[in-house]
Amino acid sequence: MSTDDSGTAVDPAVLETADDIASMEIRGAATIADAAAAALATQARHSSAETPAAFRDQLRAAAKTLYETRPTAVSLPNALRFVLRGMDGEIVPELRESTVARAETFRSDLEQAQTNLGEIGANRLRDGDVVLTHCHSTDALACIEAALEDGKSLEAIVKETRPRKQGHITARQLREWGVPVTLIVDNAARRYLDEADHVLVGADSIAADGSVINKIGTSGLAVNARERGVPVMVAAQTIKLHPDTMTGHTIEIENRDEDEVLPPEERTDVAVDSADDGLTVENPAFDVTPPRHVDAIVTEHGQFPPESIVTLMRELFGETTGEPWEV
Amino acid sequence: MSTDDSGTAVDPAVLETADDIASMEIRGAATIADAAAAALATQARHSSAETPAAFRDQLRAAAKTLYETRPTAVSLPNALRFVLRGMDGEIVPELRESTVARAETFRSDLEQAQTNLGEIGANRLRDGDVVLTHCHSTDALACIEAALEDGKSLEAIVKETRPRKQGHITARQLREWGVPVTLIVDNAARRYLDEADHVLVGADSIAADGSVINKIGTSGLAVNARERGVPVMVAAQTIKLHPDTMTGHTIEIENRDEDEVLPPEERTDVAVDSADDGLTVENPAFDVTPPRHVDAIVTEHGQFPPESIVTLMRELFGETTGEPWEV
Amino acid sequence: MSTDDSGTAVDPAVLETADDIASMEIRGAATIADAAAAALATQARHSSAETPAAFRDQLRAAAKTLYETRPTAVSLPNALRFVLRGMDGEIVPELRESTVARAETFRSDLEQAQTNLGEIGANRLRDGDVVLTHCHSTDALACIEAALEDGKSLEAIVKETRPRKQGHITARQLREWGVPVTLIVDNAARRYLDEADHVLVGADSIAADGSVINKIGTSGLAVNARERGVPVMVAAQTIKLHPDTMTGHTIEIENRDEDEVLPPEERTDVAVDSADDGLTVENPAFDVTPPRHVDAIVTEHGQFPPESIVTLMRELFGETTGEPWEV
Amino acid sequence: MSTDDSGTAVDPAVLETADDIASMEIRGAATIADAAAAALATQARHSSAETPAAFRDQLRAAAKTLYETRPTAVSLPNALRFVLRGMDGEIVPELRESTVARAETFRSDLEQAQTNLGEIGANRLRDGDVVLTHCHSTDALACIEAALEDGKSLEAIVKETRPRKQGHITARQLREWGVPVTLIVDNAARRYLDEADHVLVGADSIAADGSVINKIGTSGLAVNARERGVPVMVAAQTIKLHPDTMTGHTIEIENRDEDEVLPPEERTDVAVDSADDGLTVENPAFDVTPPRHVDAIVTEHGQFPPESIVTLMRELFGETTGEPWEV
Amino acid sequence: MSTDDSGTAVDPAVLETADDIASMEIRGAATIADAAAAALATQARHSSAETPAAFRDQLRAAAKTLYETRPTAVSLPNALRFVLRGMDGEIVPELRESTVARAETFRSDLEQAQTNLGEIGANRLRDGDVVLTHCHSTDALACIEAALEDGKSLEAIVKETRPRKQGHITARQLREWGVPVTLIVDNAARRYLDEADHVLVGADSIAADGSVINKIGTSGLAVNARERGVPVMVAAQTIKLHPDTMTGHTIEIENRDEDEVLPPEERTDVAVDSADDGLTVENPAFDVTPPRHVDAIVTEHGQFPPESIVTLMRELFGETTGEPWEV
Amino acid sequence: MSTDDSGTAVDPAVLETADDIASMEIRGAATIADAAAAALATQARHSSAETPAAFRDQLRAAAKTLYETRPTAVSLPNALRFVLRGMDGEIVPELRESTVARAETFRSDLEQAQTNLGEIGANRLRDGDVVLTHCHSTDALACIEAALEDGKSLEAIVKETRPRKQGHITARQLREWGVPVTLIVDNAARRYLDEADHVLVGADSIAADGSVINKIGTSGLAVNARERGVPVMVAAQTIKLHPDTMTGHTIEIENRDEDEVLPPEERTDVAVDSADDGLTVENPAFDVTPPRHVDAIVTEHGQFPPESIVTLMRELFGETTGEPWEV
Repeated sequence: MSTDDSGTAVDPAVLETADDIASMEIRGAATIADAAAAALATQARHSSAETPAAFRDQLRAAAKTLYETRPTAVSLPNALRFVLRGMDGEIVPELRESTVARAETFRSDLEQAQTNLGEIGANRLRDGDVVLTHCHSTDALACIEAALEDGKSLEAIVKETRPRKQGHITARQLREWGVPVTLIVDNAARRYLDEADHVLVGADSIAADGSVINKIGTSGLAVNARERGVPVMVAAQTIKLHPDTMTGHTIEIENRDEDEVLPPEERTDVAVDSADDGLTVENPAFDVTPPRHVDAIVTEHGQFPPESIVTLMRELFGETTGEPWEV
Repeated sequence: MSTDDSGTAVDPAVLETADDIASMEIRGAATIADAAAAALATQARHSSAETPAAFRDQLRAAAKTLYETRPTAVSLPNALRFVLRGMDGEIVPELRESTVARAETFRSDLEQAQTNLGEIGANRLRDGDVVLTHCHSTDALACIEAALEDGKSLEAIVKETRPRKQGHITARQLREWGVPVTLIVDNAARRYLDEADHVLVGADSIAADGSVINKIGTSGLAVNARERGVPVMVAAQTIKLHPDTMTGHTIEIENRDEDEVLPPEERTDVAVDSADDGLTVENPAFDVTPPRHVDAIVTEHGQFPPESIVTLMRELFGETTGEPWEV
Repeated sequence: MSTDDSGTAVDPAVLETADDIASMEIRGAATIADAAAAALATQARHSSAETPAAFRDQLRAAAKTLYETRPTAVSLPNALRFVLRGMDGEIVPELRESTVARAETFRSDLEQAQTNLGEIGANRLRDGDVVLTHCHSTDALACIEAALEDGKSLEAIVKETRPRKQGHITARQLREWGVPVTLIVDNAARRYLDEADHVLVGADSIAADGSVINKIGTSGLAVNARERGVPVMVAAQTIKLHPDTMTGHTIEIENRDEDEVLPPEERTDVAVDSADDGLTVENPAFDVTPPRHVDAIVTEHGQFPPESIVTLMRELFGETTGEPWEV
Repeated sequence: MSTDDSGTAVDPAVLETADDIASMEIRGAATIADAAAAALATQARHSSAETPAAFRDQLRAAAKTLYETRPTAVSLPNALRFVLRGMDGEIVPELRESTVARAETFRSDLEQAQTNLGEIGANRLRDGDVVLTHCHSTDALACIEAALEDGKSLEAIVKETRPRKQGHITARQLREWGVPVTLIVDNAARRYLDEADHVLVGADSIAADGSVINKIGTSGLAVNARERGVPVMVAAQTIKLHPDTMTGHTIEIENRDEDEVLPPEERTDVAVDSADDGLTVENPAFDVTPPRHVDAIVTEHGQFPPESIVTLMRELFGETTGEPWEV
Repeated sequence: MSTDDSGTAVDPAVLETADDIASMEIRGAATIADAAAAALATQARHSSAETPAAFRDQLRAAAKTLYETRPTAVSLPNALRFVLRGMDGEIVPELRESTVARAETFRSDLEQAQTNLGEIGANRLRDGDVVLTHCHSTDALACIEAALEDGKSLEAIVKETRPRKQGHITARQLREWGVPVTLIVDNAARRYLDEADHVLVGADSIAADGSVINKIGTSGLAVNARERGVPVMVAAQTIKLHPDTMTGHTIEIENRDEDEVLPPEERTDVAVDSADDGLTVENPAFDVTPPRHVDAIVTEHGQFPPESIVTLMRELFGETTGEPWEV
Repeated sequence: MSTDDSGTAVDPAVLETADDIASMEIRGAATIADAAAAALATQARHSSAETPAAFRDQLRAAAKTLYETRPTAVSLPNALRFVLRGMDGEIVPELRESTVARAETFRSDLEQAQTNLGEIGANRLRDGDVVLTHCHSTDALACIEAALEDGKSLEAIVKETRPRKQGHITARQLREWGVPVTLIVDNAARRYLDEADHVLVGADSIAADGSVINKIGTSGLAVNARERGVPVMVAAQTIKLHPDTMTGHTIEIENRDEDEVLPPEERTDVAVDSADDGLTVENPAFDVTPPRHVDAIVTEHGQFPPESIVTLMRELFGETTGEPWEV
């Protein structure tokens, strides 16, 4: 057993999970969340605490250790908050049991989440509909897959989604399911919105003010969809709901490698010399779509107008005025 | 001397010009227009007509011959209409003189048009402004160049403009003029509109209802610019005003080679097999921006709200209810 | 005692209620809901179950039986869900008592609902206001009646509401209460919005994404009201909140008899012959108004922005990922 | 010969025409305009004036006589203004000739106007388009007819257009031309806009500020069309351009017989007693659609954005600061 | 001990507090709320009730006494409701303890509220941002102060806020904190929105339909901010959430002294004589901003889209269909 | 006789007028324009030119001399352009006569302009209308005066218009005409738009792109008027049409004395010390309202949608690609 700063013992299994998250051996929103909940269950099972207070301290210490490995990973604090909020009882065995049960609930819900979300999202799609997609999202594809399984016939218009053209992955998946696909450049989106019944995208994370953070280009697409009268549907599991935003935090938008925008071999087309200081390449990974341009957010707990997603966040993760390990 | 269907003699020099336009040896909106006006002047000079009616018939026959080489080239009927409308006089020498003079006016105006347009457009740009561009347009660049010559300092945000990335040409030109450039993918446009003072684009053609036909992606950009409060300025010489649209004609949008969107080597990323019928690639060259999303069209005759450009069309090219050679 | 498929005994009184709902002897949203709640109370009272599990099975079987009589009636699953969610206790007598009490709460709330809703809606109306109405809704009228009882003076502009002109019923009721009425055709609505302080309508049902399903014409009116700056108020008891929509289900819009639109005697004015295949008459009963065009939904539990009505749905009926009898 | 107030002789043929317009033997916008132009030609031919001033006085007197028969008929002052503005010359024979020629131009243009307008409007319609119509307009139908003659295949969604259901006339005409028709009530318009490529309406008159005065319901439809992304096209011959509006005059909207809205036999459904003072029925014939909700006005002189129609008005009818007979 | 109408004893300390509120010796939203909660705690501590029912009656009587002193003060019923809703237990000592504890929670939360709100609001502000303010609000300033304490550099554009120019107080406070301030008249707001990253205002109260009631001019500013693409942030402690609005009540807008608008010494500039009946001066203190023009409401419990603030109201103060003392 | 740079004689009377304009003895848009036209007429009358070319040179030299006294005064180049464009003839006497006549036309039109404009604007106002005004404009008031003379009854809501409260002048004038006036602060405008039938303002100048430059606050008012559904009417004589804007020039917005915003005696309320560098006061005199927020511009030549005012500018003042004296 190790101890954290305050001398509280953290279980070696928790430390191992923390290390794996930090080293990115454990990665991906769902995988991280699952591992974190499992680690807290292990901590509860192994706890040697003799008083309820000590037990709680141990669990919080474990949560803190896990959290600090990747404080910007949206799913990690969600897992920790959800489990800690279920820690309930007046004696240690009760606390242990409730915590373990809560962690199991989280994990089994998570395992089912994409399937459930897909079924809910599929209900918004009617037979014969045309869906316009941006980027690649397994949550969004789960909606289409479930609709196909319901026997509905769909078509897709797929934006290639520069700079990384993840639209190609989406198109390929849809083609494997037999969905007719029209591939277009991002610039052609407004033209093809007139042929679409839905815009369907995923989300990197969702903020308490109802904003959707998703692959760059989503917000411009949503503004055009509103102007053309096409509803916008966002598919996002609840591990994507960003708890820090409940306390006003804005989400830092990562700037990715500029080579994605301008590969070295194309640089000479643009730059006047090899060290062209006046040429900047910007490559923000995501953008922010305000709630007024989104019609529905589909989660495994049902669909919500973006303006009320904060209620679901509070229900699942509590009020987040404290640190994630202090719920 | 050849004759057209009605037996009217068309000058060999006109026929030669017609051939060169048809074979695309003469190409580009301005070059075609210039050649057509010159051909009509030649026809007028060489005309053997003995009566005013015969002279007019010859000129119209020449115009018809020229027009039919590329009836969809917007600048060609404009040149013909402009010259024929200046054919004035009661005897042949007067008709000859007026026609030649009108052709010369057209040609010298045309030569000056981009410069004049640039000066007018430059007046909309203030020192320190940031301009966001789409695609590559020499008319749009002329505005920036003139502003730089006026001693104004400008910065540019340049959209790469898939599928052909003509934004690279724009960026390179701006860098050669020493303008700081930020290069972005098209998907990032809404994010960077908050840093722009103007959207500045060219036009492939402009319709009588005030719509702007320009490189695919323009309309989606304009919708977002309005939503973000950024004015949209279109730079277009008057040879781009499409006379057929005055009579309600819509402009056919060319579909370009799908390899521009999905090069053969990337096709296997998307298609399920080599003959994937369910995969369509669409590559429309242009889109249509309604006038309500454009703030000003800058021409060599001044700037106009898009809703009043029809007045300039009528002034220059007349009411177009007949054929171009029948004005 | 009968049994359902799984052999669980369903009380004869429940079966009788189910028959009456199926045969439409029991009809109307409130009447159906009341009968269903009463039936569940009867089932609870008569239950011969010896274990809590058996009791729960019986109640669920009864709910299933009732539900399947008219699965599209929005108020029926609401009543079942509300009652079953109150089934609480560790022994059969406790379960019985809680279930009966819950059913009684539902029924007495329902009896009071329109009155309470009316008082709440009346508070939005000021003395001297002009209310523009569409179709006929007793919930909407309850707001006006309560305002009149509060001593407020109101005027009404009543759209006739083709095809069935239920506006006439509204107008008549308002006249009986002494409210000055201006009757107009539906086409005149935008013109008269400038004289209105409120648009007031009822709802057929309300979806989790905040959409209002109401008599055809509501959505077009709401769009115009927003454009004219007139707030839109929807009066709807909570039995109208559609639980299936929480899981993304869209609401099927019934197509009513085309004779309502084109009576047989007028058909000859339009059709070219008696079997005119090229003439279609469409008569959808309802349309869908997105939440951004509605200012407030007034229920007996208070008023809500349409975007947050999903929270009330979850509070009353739970998360609806399972079948109505499985809450 | 009669004389007007100032003692100027007005030709008996003019007086006869004036009487026929006043008594509504001559009626319909085009018929009135044609008769008025013909009457001025007759006045010019028969004029006994010996000086240019006397000739002009006679023509103006004739115009005044004609105008005062129905000062609110929009086509009448248009005809008078157009002809008088062509009165040109320094001696009486020149004046006579120019006036007669101008009247003939007006009349032959008028005869051709609907055909020409139809061809221009047809150019906006593509093969396979769906057109949504309101009320009955021969100008609007001329566009569809011309498109059909061009070999295009069209479908129509026809609003019945209460109170007089002139949509039935439109539907019948379209059916006779073999166009598939879907008939709907006015309330269903927003729902069916999603299936339409154009809204196509006529106009009762068009104002200098770009507003379109047309059958009640047009403005509400146009607002919804903009919200749904469907372009709105107005077909109107130039005799519908209202010259008085150039000087700010608003167009009086006629209130038609209330029996059209509430036939006597239905009154008892609504009124509380036979003399129900609190029940008002309003039946305005037209409403006003602001230019921002209209995409194009199609005339026989070409298509125009509504904001620039004033330029065409000035071109055809001059600046209208004086009386119609004083141009 | 005094008694209320029903003979229930109200503690003298409660009566004293009531008198002080009535006489405005206790004033200001937070001070009133704090005193009211303290009074209920005192009532609970001093209660001589021998039965739970009697205890509850006494507490309700105390609440009623307090409430009736200033029924329009939004924070007073909030304090009473919050405390009474925490009254829990089956015997008097439990009831006493829970009530006192609840009152203490309310009071300590209240003491922390502005600080917590400030920290949350500060998270929305980025280093280098420019904030445009209207009127003077300590809640809004708390956000700026917390951002400054976080080491962020901010600038402010301060509207003077006629008629009382409370913008001067805001400007002075910001200057004392070292924030660069640009002072403008209210009319200049749209011009300076192009330089602002946020509009930040406080609130007088917030309604259940998401409307923000704040100093006159807020709504016009918010409409312009939306048009210019600038987000609007409202800072408001939860004591400003108006419980009566949950039941549809509209908030009465006070008309302040007209001398604030037109001081006596300026009256002669405007009025035609000393008793100019035709001259009215209106001075409404507040206006109503609809939720669609507000991006976030920042409270001490987190930030919320305005459309979901009703959920927080229900959570804190319960459903408000009864009187404030009857929760 | 003096001479300009090129040695061309400029008449002493012209020089005197130029001096008076430069010294602001001649001031006010109309007065300047009138004096400039008169000076050109004098130059024409006194011209000693013996050739048409010399005459033209003299007139242009006079125009240049006048223009350069106040190149930013919008009415001055308008007067010069209008007169010079009328200089027509093949011999000197003809040129003289035409120039003098053109100057007289300009001057008499100018004298009549406000009256004519008032009559046109009055036609937009109906009996019983409520007009909301911003600042003080004699053009706007002329519309109201003419409506009153037509026997219409009007009411006015008058914004005080900080910083200089010119609304007081408007209110006083309206009261003298017996118009009931409600005086409000600028912040109250959105609230009172619901009671207004028109927003009526003047203009400092009008740009070719349809923008209206007027007293600061106009644009924010217009945006709110559109949101509330109230039409905006701008009254502006044609001398306010800014010819430089046809060539893209933007209009420099003057920053007035900051004491108007913050009088010295109030400075200590805001500034932290006497030399508070961090406190800036901005006082722009005007702002720019885009054409999409304006419904009609009323001139003495009729009313125009703002998008077509450029046509009137071209008609009156020609294409302005050269200097004002080179038309």
